[in-house]
Amino acid sequence: MAIKKVDLKKAYRLLQIGPTTMISAKHNGIENVMAAAWVSLVGNNKVMAFIGKQAFTRELVEKSGYYVVQIPTVKQMNTVLYVGENSYKTINNKLDKIPIFYQDEFDLPLVEGCAGWLICKVIPNARNEKEHNLFMGEIIGAWSDDRVFNNGHWIFDDAPDELRTVHYVAGGQFYAIGKGTKFNHGPGSD
Amino acid sequence: MAIKKVDLKKAYRLLQIGPTTMISAKHNGIENVMAAAWVSLVGNNKVMAFIGKQAFTRELVEKSGYYVVQIPTVKQMNTVLYVGENSYKTINNKLDKIPIFYQDEFDLPLVEGCAGWLICKVIPNARNEKEHNLFMGEIIGAWSDDRVFNNGHWIFDDAPDELRTVHYVAGGQFYAIGKGTKFNHGPGSD
Repeated sequence: MAIKKVDLKKAYRLLQIGPTTMISAKHNGIENVMAAAWVSLVGNNKVMAFIGKQAFTRELVEKSGYYVVQIPTVKQMNTVLYVGENSYKTINNKLDKIPIFYQDEFDLPLVEGCAGWLICKVIPNARNEKEHNLFMGEIIGAWSDDRVFNNGHWIFDDAPDELRTVHYVAGGQFYAIGKGTKFNHGPGSD
Repeated sequence: MAIKKVDLKKAYRLLQIGPTTMISAKHNGIENVMAAAWVSLVGNNKVMAFIGKQAFTRELVEKSGYYVVQIPTVKQMNTVLYVGENSYKTINNKLDKIPIFYQDEFDLPLVEGCAGWLICKVIPNARNEKEHNLFMGEIIGAWSDDRVFNNGHWIFDDAPDELRTVHYVAGGQFYAIGKGTKFNHGPGSD
């Protein structure tokens, strides 16, 4: 297994299958991770993330101007629920249980064991942020676990099932991504 | 099989698993359907959809103030690729091949055979629309095929595999949603 850089032109494919994500950020030495199901692409190089007013991570994003969207796997579902149910505001050693690593160039915490990571630089828009809790970001760095995403394509069917992405419904119910199919035509290319 | 109304409080769950969608709209008797992978939730009652400037459907949305987000199944993947690869601008009998139906109250075309449908009323925001091709909409109506979504929950594991949602990557590659799991805790409730 290796964590490989993803070509920024193909990084959108990490998110396009619609996984539930975790968002992390750091400011002034303080780091945090939250769960986020309302994250989407805005074209093929930008991200829009809903970060509620109650989220401690929001302050870190607002102050630093950066956030990381990471794509957890089935194996990490307990972590996703843990970071979703517990706030740094009440448990400020929250991250003791979450193994973090860094990539060169970026002083941003990445959660170990994910399928993919996207570093986003906030494109400020006060109305979206204040009225709708939406933070737009340009994708400026991306990596994947090459067992599940390599050469710009997901390869779940060749990897252990515990490395599949998770797609959260509600009340603890979620689905893993399933079986892949390839038509010989369709938008996008290799 | 029945098409059942979905409680608007739970309609967000149709989209939260991150499916590739089709967007339809109608204005002045003209209707169209497009493929859309960049559609997300904004909280639990709103949608944000990326609708590019080249899309004929965009004019229908701008003029009518409404759009429908529908969630296709594996069985409809050819339809998704067809509407994604062919524009009404060049093939204006595009919809001859796409069976459409209507729900009472709404003069909007819904594509037959989908897993779910969400009617969205545009919340105007000129900057998002012009600069980023983003159309925000409030969810004002929702239905599901009760074989796959019932009582506010997806039930894919009890239904034929061809009714699973699709999650598009690029170049004709897509994944179906996979196996479900239920933890006994987690955000959201029944």
